[in-house]
Amino acid sequence: MPRYALKVEYDGGPFAGWQRQADQPSVQAAIEAALARLEPRAHTIAAAGRTDAGVHARGQVAQCDMDKDWDPFRLSEALNHHLKPAPVAIVAAARVADDWHARFSALERRYLFRILIRRAPLTLEVGQVWHVRHDLDVHAMQDAANHLLGRHDFTTFRSVQCQSDSPVKTLDRLAVSRHDTAAGPEIRFDVRARSFLHNQVRSFVGTLERVGAGSWSPEDVRQALEAKDRAACGPVCPPQGLYLVGVGYPVDPFA
Amino acid sequence: MPRYALKVEYDGGPFAGWQRQADQPSVQAAIEAALARLEPRAHTIAAAGRTDAGVHARGQVAQCDMDKDWDPFRLSEALNHHLKPAPVAIVAAARVADDWHARFSALERRYLFRILIRRAPLTLEVGQVWHVRHDLDVHAMQDAANHLLGRHDFTTFRSVQCQSDSPVKTLDRLAVSRHDTAAGPEIRFDVRARSFLHNQVRSFVGTLERVGAGSWSPEDVRQALEAKDRAACGPVCPPQGLYLVGVGYPVDPFA
Repeated sequence: MPRYALKVEYDGGPFAGWQRQADQPSVQAAIEAALARLEPRAHTIAAAGRTDAGVHARGQVAQCDMDKDWDPFRLSEALNHHLKPAPVAIVAAARVADDWHARFSALERRYLFRILIRRAPLTLEVGQVWHVRHDLDVHAMQDAANHLLGRHDFTTFRSVQCQSDSPVKTLDRLAVSRHDTAAGPEIRFDVRARSFLHNQVRSFVGTLERVGAGSWSPEDVRQALEAKDRAACGPVCPPQGLYLVGVGYPVDPFA
Repeated sequence: MPRYALKVEYDGGPFAGWQRQADQPSVQAAIEAALARLEPRAHTIAAAGRTDAGVHARGQVAQCDMDKDWDPFRLSEALNHHLKPAPVAIVAAARVADDWHARFSALERRYLFRILIRRAPLTLEVGQVWHVRHDLDVHAMQDAANHLLGRHDFTTFRSVQCQSDSPVKTLDRLAVSRHDTAAGPEIRFDVRARSFLHNQVRSFVGTLERVGAGSWSPEDVRQALEAKDRAACGPVCPPQGLYLVGVGYPVDPFA
């Protein structure tokens, strides 16, 4: 069975997350249903990152095995046709080797988190950013973030439901930047690692927001990390500012 | 009665346009209803630009007359409270002179139009851009746009329903630019004039898209303008890429 890599974009708002669930809409089930319109049988796809409810993707990567030898572009066009009107799009497709795996071959996951700072309610950005009403100190947040870089036991920043074997991960990048936008000042967190624990990015951002607001110091974040205790984490921030923007592989299948 | 200027942002998607209508939701009616929660009586507000159904605003400007002497910030907060959950926000408010008028005092309206170029369906940008599936030549579009700059009889680019006394207007800016975004290449049209005819920006963009696609030449646009004939216009483009981004006054009331 020829295997394909799919680059997937979605608005996570209407979904209970990536992963198929018995009685709630999921991105995985939407794509599997579209595959079943092309080749009528049960399809099971795997993805690089299992995003939570409300989390978006610009560059999720999934794999599917087909009976027929599809031209990758025609496969993406046919899937997009059957995905309508769900806010899920196959933005690229590529033939890959039989032993290539969307999840296990991945070397890096890249996430973006967006905070929009303003007093007024949101209009055009509803569901696409975390709305924070007070100003945030980017330099303090970056100082705190720097304590999290590298290889650590991230028990503090891991959901109690996390199924990862080990809490030890290596955080390669956590860059905080401020941008002027038409809607107001936006804070962006660019986060990269080989893999992440469950709720890790939202635990980071929720904690760093407390630093930006001045109620935590960067040193408090270092101590929270060293505590290796979930109770030491700041508040976990809401999902709608989080985007899986890309996945790195030894060779880019879409290049 | 003290008069206030309101800077208004909205997602035009759920509205039949700015202007109050008998049996359809409008931005004007939403704000007037919020005003009636603050001072119970009939309120009638005026705006700088009467945007059509589906057209958004970042910087619409409206005026209201109040019985009480409101602190402008408290007025904006109270209106935002009562506007929820409509995607309309008062992003600034200011006390203005009794003879100041949101529409008649305005010296300039600034619009942005966004086209997103890609094959795949839209997900996160649904309702916020015009989705075009083929590439567009920005330089050809700018060459064509340059023919429209200055003072002209714009009968060709005016809706037959336009109620303006004269089709003669002065177009001060029509700049076409290309930007790389996470969703794909985006074409932006930055359009400025003292005032516009009904459907003028969408008639411009729909016609310029034909130039970008190669089916019209810049010279065709010049001839269409000189024809002074609505039938010479290209297709009017859809509303959802259009944003009223700002209004200019002799003195910025929000500065």
